[in-house]
Formats: sequence, C-alpha cells, structure tokens
Amino acid sequence: MRIQLDDITGVLAIMPTPATPDAADPSALDTVDHEESRRAVDALIADGVDAVMITGTFGECATLTWDEHRAFVTTVVEQAAGRVPVFAGATTLNTRDTIARARVFADIGVSGLLLGRPMWSPCDDSAVVGYYRDVAAAVPDLGIVVYDNPVSFGGKISPKAYAQLAAIPQVIAAKYPVLGPSFLADLDAMTGRMRLLPVERDWYYTWRWAPDAMTACWSGSASCGPAPAIALRDAIREGRAEDAEAIARGYRHAAQTFFPQGSFELFSKYNVQLEKIRIDEAGYLHAGPSRPPYVECPDAYAEGARESGRRLAELHRKYAAVPTAAR
Amino acid sequence: MRIQLDDITGVLAIMPTPATPDAADPSALDTVDHEESRRAVDALIADGVDAVMITGTFGECATLTWDEHRAFVTTVVEQAAGRVPVFAGATTLNTRDTIARARVFADIGVSGLLLGRPMWSPCDDSAVVGYYRDVAAAVPDLGIVVYDNPVSFGGKISPKAYAQLAAIPQVIAAKYPVLGPSFLADLDAMTGRMRLLPVERDWYYTWRWAPDAMTACWSGSASCGPAPAIALRDAIREGRAEDAEAIARGYRHAAQTFFPQGSFELFSKYNVQLEKIRIDEAGYLHAGPSRPPYVECPDAYAEGARESGRRLAELHRKYAAVPTAAR
Amino acid sequence: MRIQLDDITGVLAIMPTPATPDAADPSALDTVDHEESRRAVDALIADGVDAVMITGTFGECATLTWDEHRAFVTTVVEQAAGRVPVFAGATTLNTRDTIARARVFADIGVSGLLLGRPMWSPCDDSAVVGYYRDVAAAVPDLGIVVYDNPVSFGGKISPKAYAQLAAIPQVIAAKYPVLGPSFLADLDAMTGRMRLLPVERDWYYTWRWAPDAMTACWSGSASCGPAPAIALRDAIREGRAEDAEAIARGYRHAAQTFFPQGSFELFSKYNVQLEKIRIDEAGYLHAGPSRPPYVECPDAYAEGARESGRRLAELHRKYAAVPTAAR
Amino acid sequence: MRIQLDDITGVLAIMPTPATPDAADPSALDTVDHEESRRAVDALIADGVDAVMITGTFGECATLTWDEHRAFVTTVVEQAAGRVPVFAGATTLNTRDTIARARVFADIGVSGLLLGRPMWSPCDDSAVVGYYRDVAAAVPDLGIVVYDNPVSFGGKISPKAYAQLAAIPQVIAAKYPVLGPSFLADLDAMTGRMRLLPVERDWYYTWRWAPDAMTACWSGSASCGPAPAIALRDAIREGRAEDAEAIARGYRHAAQTFFPQGSFELFSKYNVQLEKIRIDEAGYLHAGPSRPPYVECPDAYAEGARESGRRLAELHRKYAAVPTAAR
Repeated sequence: MRIQLDDITGVLAIMPTPATPDAADPSALDTVDHEESRRAVDALIADGVDAVMITGTFGECATLTWDEHRAFVTTVVEQAAGRVPVFAGATTLNTRDTIARARVFADIGVSGLLLGRPMWSPCDDSAVVGYYRDVAAAVPDLGIVVYDNPVSFGGKISPKAYAQLAAIPQVIAAKYPVLGPSFLADLDAMTGRMRLLPVERDWYYTWRWAPDAMTACWSGSASCGPAPAIALRDAIREGRAEDAEAIARGYRHAAQTFFPQGSFELFSKYNVQLEKIRIDEAGYLHAGPSRPPYVECPDAYAEGARESGRRLAELHRKYAAVPTAAR
Repeated sequence: MRIQLDDITGVLAIMPTPATPDAADPSALDTVDHEESRRAVDALIADGVDAVMITGTFGECATLTWDEHRAFVTTVVEQAAGRVPVFAGATTLNTRDTIARARVFADIGVSGLLLGRPMWSPCDDSAVVGYYRDVAAAVPDLGIVVYDNPVSFGGKISPKAYAQLAAIPQVIAAKYPVLGPSFLADLDAMTGRMRLLPVERDWYYTWRWAPDAMTACWSGSASCGPAPAIALRDAIREGRAEDAEAIARGYRHAAQTFFPQGSFELFSKYNVQLEKIRIDEAGYLHAGPSRPPYVECPDAYAEGARESGRRLAELHRKYAAVPTAAR
Repeated sequence: MRIQLDDITGVLAIMPTPATPDAADPSALDTVDHEESRRAVDALIADGVDAVMITGTFGECATLTWDEHRAFVTTVVEQAAGRVPVFAGATTLNTRDTIARARVFADIGVSGLLLGRPMWSPCDDSAVVGYYRDVAAAVPDLGIVVYDNPVSFGGKISPKAYAQLAAIPQVIAAKYPVLGPSFLADLDAMTGRMRLLPVERDWYYTWRWAPDAMTACWSGSASCGPAPAIALRDAIREGRAEDAEAIARGYRHAAQTFFPQGSFELFSKYNVQLEKIRIDEAGYLHAGPSRPPYVECPDAYAEGARESGRRLAELHRKYAAVPTAAR
Repeated sequence: MRIQLDDITGVLAIMPTPATPDAADPSALDTVDHEESRRAVDALIADGVDAVMITGTFGECATLTWDEHRAFVTTVVEQAAGRVPVFAGATTLNTRDTIARARVFADIGVSGLLLGRPMWSPCDDSAVVGYYRDVAAAVPDLGIVVYDNPVSFGGKISPKAYAQLAAIPQVIAAKYPVLGPSFLADLDAMTGRMRLLPVERDWYYTWRWAPDAMTACWSGSASCGPAPAIALRDAIREGRAEDAEAIARGYRHAAQTFFPQGSFELFSKYNVQLEKIRIDEAGYLHAGPSRPPYVECPDAYAEGARESGRRLAELHRKYAAVPTAAR
C-alpha cells in the first residue's frame, strides 16, 4: 500500500551519496562508495531516524550518472530493508525523464520520491502543478515529497500552487525552505492534506505556530549525527517546549558559520561542496569528494562549513549521551 | 580537422526540434518529426544560413528524451551532409553526462557543441571554467559554442571567466545574450580568440563598435524565415551600414511584442512555448507542440508571439524577394 | 525624563496626516486637516491605544512641506496632551536635516522619533549606525524608534547593525517589517536592550517564539479601528493564546487583498495611496487625498485596499462590541 | 528665453560641492568652500566644458542643508556669469518641495534643473510623468534635465515614460545611466524631442549607433580634469572615429578600478565617497570630505577610486597637452 500522509512523521534524514576518492575526476564512472552507504543507512536507522531521503541537492542528484544513481538507490533500499521509508530524488530536466526514473525506483522498492522540478526554464504555477500531476499519474503507488528550493528550481512554490498540489493524493509532503513570509499562507493552502516539513532548525518555531500540523521535519544535519534531531522530535512529541527550544538554539548556533555572509543565495553556489565538507568534518558519515562541476569552494566558506560540522558533532555527542528514557 | 574560429561566420541559425502532434503528452515517447526536420534543414541551407545550431533552449534540449535527442541529431547531421557546420546541444546537469553525450554526437559527426552549463546549483567562475575545460579535454575534436543565458544557467558569464574560456582552444564562440553593460568588457576579455555571437537583432549595433570582431550572429528568428538575417549579413560584409540598420530596425519592430512586458525574465518562463508559437505562426517551419512540462502559456503572451511571427514573416517575404545580386 | 524601553508596550498606533480636499494639488500649501487630526487622536486614545506614531510612510513624512509637518506635530502633541507618548517622523535625506527637525519636535514636546534613514544612496551598516548615533547625540532627550523598511530605505537592517543600534541608549525600539528569515537573529542581536515591534498581524506569531520580549506591536490598521489590536494586546497579556490566534487570523484575512499580487515590493509603489484608500473605506478616520507625487493608483489595487478596509471595519465592530472586562 | 534642446551640446560637466575640512561633522552648518567652488567653475569653463551641472548625487544634493545648497547655487551661477548654462539639482522627497526650490533657483538665475524624482516610495510611470509635468508647469522658464539613476530613484525610467516626458517642452535632456538593453527603445521613445546624455565613457559607442542624436554627454570625471572629454567632443564633432574610440578606451581603463567588484549596485552605496576621493586624488579640483551620513567607505574601494583618479589625471595631462588646433 502506498505511503500515506500519517506515515510522514518525526525526522526525515537526508543522506549524501558517499563517494569514492576519485569522485571529483570527470573521467571516473563508478564513484559510489556502496560500503559506506550501507553503513550510513544502518547508523541513521539505529540512531532513530524515521525516514531516509536520498539524492536531493547535496545527495548529488544532479551529478550522479544514471547508472550510479540507480545502483545507489538499490543499495539504500536493500539496506533499509523496510525498517524506515526511503525517498529517492528523481528530479530531471523534464517530465518524461522523471517518470522513467520514478518507474525504475518504484521497481527497486522506494516508498516515494523527493522531487524537485525542471529548472532550465523556470516553471510557472501551471507548469509546476502539471508536472507533479503527470508524475503522480505515472507512478501512482509512490508518495511524493515536493522539494521546494527557490534557488535551484527557479523560485518559491506559491500558496496557489500548493493548494493544487495538496489535492493530488500522492503528494504527501513538502521539503520546505527556510522560514519566510509566506509560511502561514503556504500551510493554510495545504489544508492538512500534505505535510509541511521544515528544516530541523526551524521545527520548534513552526511547531509553536501550528502544533497539530508540524509533526515532522527534514534534516540534512542528521548526516552529521542525528541525536539532537531525535531529541528534538521527542521533546516536541512530549510537549517539552523549553527542551525543544534549547535544541533549536543549538542548531541555530551551528548554522551561524554555515551560510557564507549569512546568504542562502551565496550558499547555493556551493551547496554540495559545503554540505559534504561539513559532514566529513563532523565525522558521523563519510561523504567524500563532490562530483564535477561542483568541485571547488573558497577556503573561507569551507572553514565556515567545518566549524559548523564541529558544532553539530558536539551537539550530537551531547544528545547521544542522554539515555532515551530520560529524554 | 576541428572547426576553427574563422569558420564561425555569418548567420548561425537556431532550429527547433519539430514535434509530432502528441508531443505535449507525457506518455509519448517518440515525438520528433523527422520529415519536417529534414525539410527544415534543407530550407535553411537553401536560403543561405552559414551554420545550424540545434537543441538549445527552444530546441528543447531540456525536454527531449535521450533517445529522441540522439535520433534528431543524427537526422540533422545526415541531412546537412556537410553543407554547413552543425552544432548540437549537450547541456546536462553535470560534467560527466555532458561528456557522454558529446562523445555520441562526435561519433554522429557534429562539428561542435552548443553548450550551456549545469544549473541545479549556480556555477561560480571556477566551476564554469572547469566544466568547459573538462568537456573540451574529453572531446578534443569538437568545437564549443558557449551558451551564455543568464536566466537558464544561473547568471551571466563574467569577463574574468570569458578570459579563461578564450584560452581553451576548442572554445570558439559564445552565443551571447541581449546586449548589456558588460558587452565591451566581455569582448575585450575574449582577446580575439573566440567569436562573440550577438543575436541578429543586435548584430548591426555591435558591428558599429567592433567591425573586425563582429562577423557572425546567432539567429533564432531564422526559423521564421532567414532572408532578413542573410540580407543583414551581406550588408555588414559589404559595409552598407544604412541597409544593415534598416534590417536591424525591422528586427526590433518584430521583437516588440515578443517579450511579455518587455521583460527577458518573464519571457524565460515561456521561452520554449513562445518561440514555437512564433515559428508556427510565421509558417516557414513547423515546430509543433512543446514538450512537458513547458506546455501552457498565458493567452496574451501567446498572441504577442504570434504578432512577432507575422512581422518576421513579412520581413522574410520582403528580403527574400530581393535577388541576391541586388542585395 | 526620557521615554524608556519599558514604556514601549501594547499597541503603537500609526496615524495618517489627515488631508484637506485639495491635498493632491501641487500648488496647495496648507493641506493638513487639523480638526480631523484632533478628532483622530482623541478617538485612538479613547479606544485604548498605548502610543501614537505619526509621519511615517503613509503619514506622508516624504510629501508634507516642513511648515505642514511642524504644524501637524504640534496639533497631535497638544491634543494627546501627555495621555500617551507621541512619536513623530523625522526622516530626511541626511543627518543634519534630521537633527534640525528632531530639535524642533523636541521643543514641541514629542516623546520620540519614528526614524528611517537617508535613502538617496543606500546606507551600509556603518552609515546606518553612524546616522542613528549622531541623531541620538543631538537630541539626547528623545527616544528613537528605528524604522526598518527594506524597500523605502535601501534594504533590511542587518543583525550586526541591530547589535550596535541596541547599544545606543536612546534607541528603544524598531518598527519591524514583515516577518522574514532573519527575525530571530535580529531579536537576538537586540539583546533585550530595544523592543522589536512586529506589525499587529504578526504579533501573535512572534509572541509564541519569545513571549517575554514581544510585548508591543505597531499597527497601521489601527487607523481603520483599533479594537482588534486592543483585544489582541489583552489576549496576549493574559496568555489567552487561542483568542490571540483568532484575532491574528482575522488580520491575515483582512491583509489578503491589501498587497497587490501578494507582493510587498509592488505594494511599496502605492503604499501611501493604498493605506489612505483603506482608511477612508473603513471609515474610522478620514485620511483624505494623498499628496503629490503619490497620487494615482491602479483601480484593481485600490479595490483590494477597499476590501481590506471593509474587512478591518468588520473586525473593529466585532471587537469593539466586546466589553473590556469580558475580553 | 528658456534654454532649448539645441543648447544641450558637448560636455556637460558635473561638479562636486567643495567642502570645508569639517564637513563630515554633523554639527557643522556651513560646509561649502565657496572659494574653491569659484575656482572650480572657472577652471572647467576655461578648459572648455559646455555646461556645468551641480548638486546631483556626488554634488550632495541629498546632504547639503538648504541654506548651504542655495548659497552654493548662487556662487556657481554668479561665477559662471552666463559663460555656460548652469543646471542645479532640485530633487527632494516630493513635488512641492522641489517646486519651492526650483523657484528659488530660477530667481538666482540657473538655466535649468538636474532633476531626479522622489524615492521614499518608488514612483510608477504615472507618478514619474506627473512629477515632471507639475514641476515644469511651476517653473516654466527653466529647462529640465531628467536624472535617471535606477538605484537612487527606484528603478530605470521606462521607454513609455520617456515618451511622455519628451512631450513636456521644458524637458530637454536625460542624464542617462550606464548603457543597458533598453537604450535604443529609450532613444526611440524620445523622438528627437529631448537629448539623451550618455556618460562620457559611453558617448563614442552611442554615437556609432545614432550619430545625429548623440551630440552631448554628461561627465562626472570632468572634475578630475576635462581635457579628454573635450578632446572626445571634438573628435566626435569632426567625425574622427578612431580618435574618439581611443579616448573611450582610456575612460574605460580608468573606470575599471572605480566600481567595486564591477557592480553599480555596490558602487551606489559609496557613490558620494568614491567620487570625492577620486576627485581629490586626481587633483584638478578639491572636493573635500563627504557629508553625513555618507562618510565612511571600505579601504579597498577607496583605493580603487584613487587608482581611477590617477588614471584620469594621466588622461587629462595627455589631452591637455594637445593644442586645440591639433585636436
């Protein structure tokens, strides 16, 4: 049976696609580190995440070859072995290529798609909705998490488009960008038919606004150690607002050095590089080199990412040390 | 032998990928109208264009399946049969996919690539240059026309990046966007080692600035009838400035209704749709429906495109009627 | 004694500068309707607002002559007669003109300034801080409410600048723009030394995040009837979260038609006109015509403002009918 | 008789408002260096400029007190003594203040106004045209040079607005920003009824496009020594295209270090400071400190301005050395 809205709960961890040492070389053709991939899936699940999402932006959906991509999805699905849902990225430059990939992923056994939209030309509302509707019709047994990234995909999804997306049964959630002025209008537009997923850093704040609706988050930093996200989840579930706020503050502290000059636009130029550098510094997983053309990165930005990784590792150690019962 | 800088001259016509009537249907898998494609190639060559460029933005590089794309390139190269150079689009989301496609196109026999850059995350200068350098190294026998589209590919290429691109031997030209404030800095940065290709509408004006350098243009409107572009080429070659300016004015008149609210940003959301609507209205070629997700378009914008198509058709009739000798 | 941080509490109502019927005529020189101004001050105070702010954007700081401006401030201060604090706009194109005006206002007896920054050239952080510091030093007995309007004054004030502004003793509050991604960083930067004033529509939401800090709001819609703002204040003070949220929803409903195409950028072109149209439609005060050059406004936008005014009038009636004790 | 379109010819030099050593102090009230002002007017006229424009952006229209402004205009008009036309800035935050200032300047004897538009709220086309129409009606004997600065005044003036401005008899010219994509549409919209004034650096290039129309330029760099601008004027008048292009290249070389990171947006934050630093380094005039709040400037940007000043001084020496007859 297809994954449902109510299955979207807790911490949806986003994983990198672990890379072999030669992955930055444009002539390398087999750059997925499958062993580390399996280890990463096990670690995240063992540490309590509620779902795994792969091949988004820093999961290098854009830069994996199709052979690598398919093999990696297979590895993750096999390793997860039904313990948690797996969502795989199927974003391409057009509707038909996405459908073709989505069908392969359905056969492999993913629960759903983490799905951005074509970006060569920016899509208007009509193209956005048409695209998701066409994909949903083609792979009716997969859930769809709409990936809303204003820099990568040519603008924020509008409340009007969200209202139409929420009416598509397979569309069960949105990976939401940083909290901005249209948050409440977007949430209203979804009318409870899809889950708005904030980043873990914003979860506490959005939960204060809409405690019934805000029951899950996405977390890229989970790949630096998921313990604080899990602790946050439990605090929110149990209504421990002060504990939740303390964790949110920890996340905000860790984020301070991550966005160059505080700018998401600037960060977006180095999104892949900075996330992988941060993960490798935190040491919970091994992300490895990023794939071409997103290979280089200014030193000062890299150092900001490493400092963020160290802060996240510290947070992970702190919350991992707390026995679950005591949380 | 590889195509050289000096082979880039005159009118480089950009063609759509003619589509079958079902091309807007996401379940259609074979949507290239090969017969019309062959006819189009013949018509353009017979009417005097100096090169054919395919699978750019309105050539639907983004929305063709790979099978369609490869088949279309094969058809065009076979039909051109060496009469003019053919440049094919190989823009993908990453370096390695582009190299793989470029190698196939080299085997098919294209002269070169019309090559935009990965766009999921915007490339900084270093990523731009690295990308083109890697592709050039992988397909050393192909010429490369850099495709500089600030909306599609995350910003204008900087003069600094152009200086480095010009140093790559295979990079022989740039399909340049609408004339803006950095034109002269960009031209200087190229130091005569690559050809800056303006749109036909701007050619006369750039030629007044740099008569030695500005010996070629790209022309999307050539698919609405290339006669005015050919007449412009001849006027420029023979130094008939008044004639050239008159044609430029005709092109500007035709463009007035093409860009919704005069905005290139807004146009870019409907680039494919509007170009194909315009071509079909002009009637010189049959472009057919656009492919998903770029299917719909506001009526007022479509009507602006049709009016532009009628004006271009009128221009084509006017200049096609002039015997070549009299031009 | 100078007004202090703790005096900034509850609802700070923003008033228009009521205009005579000829106020749109550029040859009119005496366009303040002093009688309506006095009536408006009395009405707002009688209905419970905690402070009155004048000559901001829709108070037409930009378009009043200096003679009118001074006369209007005098009228308002006299009429308020110390019942509530009065803040007057002294934003000009430079530091020295602002100081000169601020000194006149100090003599008239205002409690403080509602103070935007020079905007001909955008100020960097250093210019922002230097400007407020210089004004504070020149009129040490006035409180300063920093007016942060990203469209009018060349960008959002940064957290870094807020940290420095909060260190100036006279700077006691910021009239904050629509809730955006830097809200928490801005609030942190203020370190409790200045009051962050959200718009009434956002007050409930920010209070959920920082109940101790968010004890006051600004309200332009108070000029359409302050009863819902007063009810919101009381609900927040008494911790009645559900009541507060219901009022916030009412405000959001009223705002839906106010911002053309949902855009604050577009609204800003017609800020003065739309606010005055809305106030006149609501009927609580009479704002009168706007002053040149901000005279005309597209019909559709005007109708959106009128609908917003009707919704606010309805809200005012609803909450005005509730006896204070029952609130 | 009012100055006419045909009087707008050659080099319209823009002067700073020379400042006393204490001009950066917000408590200083008399900061115009009248002696240097007179010397500057004489120098520019002696060296051949065709008009003097004052109190634009770097002329500190925004930051002079009204007493200073009026006194400075008086000094310049008296010193020019009818040898060349003088245009004074009367840009304020509204129509009525501008009219009041314009009337004073008319009495002092200026030829016309260098007139930007109110900027607190951005003006739409209707507000732009209404503003200039109202001012023209109020001071019918003054010519008006429209000051089109997209950063300072809330956007570029549209071709549609230019068409309406050109129909106002007193509007005889536009101080045009850096050459961008709408240049030709703007020039067409003016239909020969007003003069489009490019910056001296762009003059040669625009002249290649429209030799009959492009008979004048504005020049801020004239305050670093006007000899190259005068030489450019003469080359253009005499049709010496190669000479004109060589001078244009010199200007472009000097501009390379002037715009921080090549960005006009970034430059605009420090427009006043950088222009005055550049002028003082060139040494032809003494501009003195800039007035608050535009006082500080990052060191690297200041050094870029100084280098630009040295290059302009070198250019001035080069062209000043050529006897006029030989030009």
